[in-house]
Amino acid sequence: MTREEAVEKAKKVRFVILDIHGVLTDNTLYYTQEGTKSEAFSLHDRLGVKALVDAGIGVSFLTTKISRADEQMAKVYGIPPENLWGQGAKMARVDQFEQESGFKDEDICYVGDEMIDLAVMKRVGFSAAPADGSVEARGVASYVTAAGGGRGVVRELAQFILEAQGKWTRFIAQFG
Amino acid sequence: MTREEAVEKAKKVRFVILDIHGVLTDNTLYYTQEGTKSEAFSLHDRLGVKALVDAGIGVSFLTTKISRADEQMAKVYGIPPENLWGQGAKMARVDQFEQESGFKDEDICYVGDEMIDLAVMKRVGFSAAPADGSVEARGVASYVTAAGGGRGVVRELAQFILEAQGKWTRFIAQFG
Amino acid sequence: MTREEAVEKAKKVRFVILDIHGVLTDNTLYYTQEGTKSEAFSLHDRLGVKALVDAGIGVSFLTTKISRADEQMAKVYGIPPENLWGQGAKMARVDQFEQESGFKDEDICYVGDEMIDLAVMKRVGFSAAPADGSVEARGVASYVTAAGGGRGVVRELAQFILEAQGKWTRFIAQFG
Amino acid sequence: MTREEAVEKAKKVRFVILDIHGVLTDNTLYYTQEGTKSEAFSLHDRLGVKALVDAGIGVSFLTTKISRADEQMAKVYGIPPENLWGQGAKMARVDQFEQESGFKDEDICYVGDEMIDLAVMKRVGFSAAPADGSVEARGVASYVTAAGGGRGVVRELAQFILEAQGKWTRFIAQFG
Repeated sequence: MTREEAVEKAKKVRFVILDIHGVLTDNTLYYTQEGTKSEAFSLHDRLGVKALVDAGIGVSFLTTKISRADEQMAKVYGIPPENLWGQGAKMARVDQFEQESGFKDEDICYVGDEMIDLAVMKRVGFSAAPADGSVEARGVASYVTAAGGGRGVVRELAQFILEAQGKWTRFIAQFG
Repeated sequence: MTREEAVEKAKKVRFVILDIHGVLTDNTLYYTQEGTKSEAFSLHDRLGVKALVDAGIGVSFLTTKISRADEQMAKVYGIPPENLWGQGAKMARVDQFEQESGFKDEDICYVGDEMIDLAVMKRVGFSAAPADGSVEARGVASYVTAAGGGRGVVRELAQFILEAQGKWTRFIAQFG
Repeated sequence: MTREEAVEKAKKVRFVILDIHGVLTDNTLYYTQEGTKSEAFSLHDRLGVKALVDAGIGVSFLTTKISRADEQMAKVYGIPPENLWGQGAKMARVDQFEQESGFKDEDICYVGDEMIDLAVMKRVGFSAAPADGSVEARGVASYVTAAGGGRGVVRELAQFILEAQGKWTRFIAQFG
Repeated sequence: MTREEAVEKAKKVRFVILDIHGVLTDNTLYYTQEGTKSEAFSLHDRLGVKALVDAGIGVSFLTTKISRADEQMAKVYGIPPENLWGQGAKMARVDQFEQESGFKDEDICYVGDEMIDLAVMKRVGFSAAPADGSVEARGVASYVTAAGGGRGVVRELAQFILEAQGKWTRFIAQFG
């Protein structure tokens, strides 16, 4: 897809669905010897989520199971609890969301990094993958971020979408 | 070894034995001031293990002592508890496994990164080392992954083996 | 800004205000499955803070909320508790500080990495941003460090300021 | 110093003193919101310490305060408790060690990364610094490793010293 085609698709985005592992994180899981799991998120993405929400674009997390870490991070990013979707069948969750919200495929942006994300990425109007996503995810994405997973993917994506929609300048103006 | 020779050896692989430190992790140990240890694993390797298992190839962990972290990660990867082998004498464990299973050296792939892995790597039919493994391990490996330890070694290895065996296309077809 | 202009501004610095996230850290937040947050700091910055303080230049942290992690790190760096400023309205905090201390804008160095830091960065006499700060922060900074956030920004900045002030040689002389 | 000069100095090494932060770690401190500190070590260095000890060369840690993390890591590396030296005055500790042990400056290798290490590095017969050590430490070091702190400095150093002493081949022979 050319950049111009991606921009055209980005203009229509009204809702962004984020895979967590490999997108908001670098796909690394930390485990203690006692079996406690940790993950690493980027604060740069807080600005990205804020920019989208300020522009009236909804944001949700979609992953098999929402952990406490995900909940805490959602608070930091300003994502409401009802937008934390824990479900393994991603396509079915998108079906359900479209029925509930009235959004169509072309209104939706999905960000993913692995094969399990391919079907949804192909379906929605605009899709993105991180620089270090799988070759398959990058192959189908409308837009591949320069940032790797967990290093500011959403911040970069938000700027791309809002520039396409002519809303980025307004967002950054508040920072003087 | 040429790539063609490696492909020939990979065709025969029916079981993959994974060293943990430096292969599934980047060899880094995190310690708290209270002495609690952590390690970091990659979720990309979950897809690699799944691909191998789906193709009928068994996967095991072989390390001196299996920690709770290793057990948790094995659950994430879908490796059954009986395939978690905690034994410092790696060669003896491979002997035992071959007696129990009937597998021969040429059926086995071993992945390692350090000198302690060299003897088993030389013995089995197909061996692999991560990009940041020791020069000695990379020197004897049938295949050196582009990924470093803890950054998707098993995912890349699974693709190499299954492409050699003509099973990769079937695996990825399920993801639409 | 040319390097010569930056040196002229650095000569006047008598107080350094440090944003934490993205400056003292690489903007990464680690969360356990139980929701406990961690952050990563660099010991190289301890030397930077020591160099500034030895030269009579005050150092403070300015972030929305001071965490226990920040407090511990401040102890390691040798920053007194009264210089830990937890306030979201950064500009207002700088106003208050100038009233209390008698310092003027040109006496102050502010180090930040994101849009929320831009207004203060433009206001003070000398500003710095890490190599991996946002393009906006780097754009307004008097000086962009070669180090990324959490990788020695303050150490590098301290050397730049103290060399401008002719105090660096005296500082390093104590190490023989 | 030329490589040949470094090899000559390495031939005499009978004891290796290791700074911890920045040498065995990458100088990063992880803090939880509750104030618990962690650090990251490399398992590659276990092989380095083992190689030195097998060749009859003693190894110690020297840092201001020995933490539980350091103790645990010392166990992993096989360093005895009496060789864990917690003392801020590094030069005085080396004096004391030489008196107790009978070793002279030329028998000792010291590995450090920061200004606080410079005096001891200049004093001992052979000194080393990691690739990402401070420019000052690298400037006085007899040998700068290709590895950064926490990424296998001791493994690489051990090979350099033992090759100089003609003992490396014997060490690796045990791994078949």
